[in-house]
Amino acid sequence: MAIPHAAPGQAIDVAASEQTTALFKSADLEVIRLVLPAGKSLPPHKVAGEITIQCVEGAIDITAGGQSHVLRAGQLLYLSGNVMHGVTALEDASALVTIVLK
Amino acid sequence: MAIPHAAPGQAIDVAASEQTTALFKSADLEVIRLVLPAGKSLPPHKVAGEITIQCVEGAIDITAGGQSHVLRAGQLLYLSGNVMHGVTALEDASALVTIVLK
Repeated sequence: MAIPHAAPGQAIDVAASEQTTALFKSADLEVIRLVLPAGKSLPPHKVAGEITIQCVEGAIDITAGGQSHVLRAGQLLYLSGNVMHGVTALEDASALVTIVLK
Repeated sequence: MAIPHAAPGQAIDVAASEQTTALFKSADLEVIRLVLPAGKSLPPHKVAGEITIQCVEGAIDITAGGQSHVLRAGQLLYLSGNVMHGVTALEDASALVTIVLK
């Protein structure tokens, strides 16, 4: 069953989901809740726009531009557009990914 | 003393600050940690780009388009550009505000 995306002004729970979900996609932004069990990875990829990645639960490693960055719950980083990055869950983890659409 | 903004790939703590701080401003995004003691407000204002507001600690009321939305820690909403909105802390609160720059 398709999950309807949130509308402007609608409160969305950042955590509390068992799977990766697109929370909304608007004119300029897409926000995704990424859920990764410990040891699982997203292989290196890139998107055109800038992104922020906020670790909400657990811990993740983000490898970008040849450097590894560990994010724990409550930490955020941003990446410029077109930067190759991979994500690996060091523990069961969820993250909020905000992408500027280009 | 000026606090240097974060660089791409640098881990930033989302909570744990006593005052409102711009975390970074890049080509397309500005991310601000908003800290509001209980009862304090930001008067209605608007920005050109879309925004997301994520309550990190406490609870806030966001009034936009004539409607009131209560966000508790771990909840997020987005607003279209040019929408007048005011923010009131219902409890001591902090929030992460992400603004698409236009």
